[in-house]
Amino acid sequence: MPKLRVHNLSMSLDGYVAGPDQSPENPLGVGGEDLHHWIFPTATGPRRTGLDDRFVAAGDEGIGATIMGRNMFGPVRGDWGDVTWRGWWGDDPPFHHEVFVLTHHAHDPIEMAGGTTFNFVTDGTESALAQAFAAADGQDVRLGGGAAAVQQYLRAGVVDELHVAIVPVLLRGGERLFEDPDGVPEGYEVVEFVSSPAVSHVRLAKA
Amino acid sequence: MPKLRVHNLSMSLDGYVAGPDQSPENPLGVGGEDLHHWIFPTATGPRRTGLDDRFVAAGDEGIGATIMGRNMFGPVRGDWGDVTWRGWWGDDPPFHHEVFVLTHHAHDPIEMAGGTTFNFVTDGTESALAQAFAAADGQDVRLGGGAAAVQQYLRAGVVDELHVAIVPVLLRGGERLFEDPDGVPEGYEVVEFVSSPAVSHVRLAKA
Repeated sequence: MPKLRVHNLSMSLDGYVAGPDQSPENPLGVGGEDLHHWIFPTATGPRRTGLDDRFVAAGDEGIGATIMGRNMFGPVRGDWGDVTWRGWWGDDPPFHHEVFVLTHHAHDPIEMAGGTTFNFVTDGTESALAQAFAAADGQDVRLGGGAAAVQQYLRAGVVDELHVAIVPVLLRGGERLFEDPDGVPEGYEVVEFVSSPAVSHVRLAKA
Repeated sequence: MPKLRVHNLSMSLDGYVAGPDQSPENPLGVGGEDLHHWIFPTATGPRRTGLDDRFVAAGDEGIGATIMGRNMFGPVRGDWGDVTWRGWWGDDPPFHHEVFVLTHHAHDPIEMAGGTTFNFVTDGTESALAQAFAAADGQDVRLGGGAAAVQQYLRAGVVDELHVAIVPVLLRGGERLFEDPDGVPEGYEVVEFVSSPAVSHVRLAKA
């Protein structure tokens, strides 16, 4: 059975996967980029290790389609209007397969270079999941985030694997991954815990 | 200057330092004991490493007095009544110095074996801190927990060091250490991040 998987979801020490005050200038919220230095090392931070490389690479292995929340596509809120924005991800997005963007507002598919097409799904998370599995054609589906999308699929009990990278930074606000009482439903357990100098990798899976 | 220090505060992956539904039978809340297996290893869990030993030992070094919230002393809530309970900590508590218990209800000091005396402070956290520093006589003061006590002293900006051990378990409720928006005040930063197979150790200090 193909799986729904979350990979490399970076969470701050105080539990946030995005910082406060998200905006076009700060798409990850204030300080949110600090969550990702372990993937894109800076000159002064810890170097990425082979362990980190393995987790980053695992996020692409066997993946045939991606689902993401609207905020991971772009900053536009509400109706799309005549916006011609084609997403945060550049002209050749790093997906190379069908991407399903959860939104309440219809939008024509956007075909990008390199095999990525952004499809906009307005009839809910279950529909997006069915469409993504169909597009993946026997491969797994990656759930890219953000927090709200991951929480919805976790609550529905359909996430098979969730890899969280705990990053030793403090964001002091933003979007929490694990909200009480619905953030971590029953039925998931920690199956791997291993750390590099930069982050702690935790994998959850259905028990 | 003597410091106020928090050590070995174990926090679950979802951010809890005690589980839900605390009671005399479950003083740490349901599942809360899972937070402490890295200190008191079980037959099947990961073994404690030298790194973990170092952090556990650091919690006692240079400490001359301890402050704790009432729930860390015992399960009694509200007025003490004629309860003769002498705390969770056994006949020879592992402090061997003056302990200051934060409570709204007066109680005579309780002198235990081994040099530990439990003092009950009813006039607030600031008074408890002053009394503890006086009793420590030039040594540091340890803030033992729980979450509410740590949060109060963090908000007051008087915690000099906070060592959190992130434990890869899910508690799905209970007492959160880092509550938005007041849990991690400005002015603290991560100064150490190092992991064993059992836990990730994070030290915060005043910037």
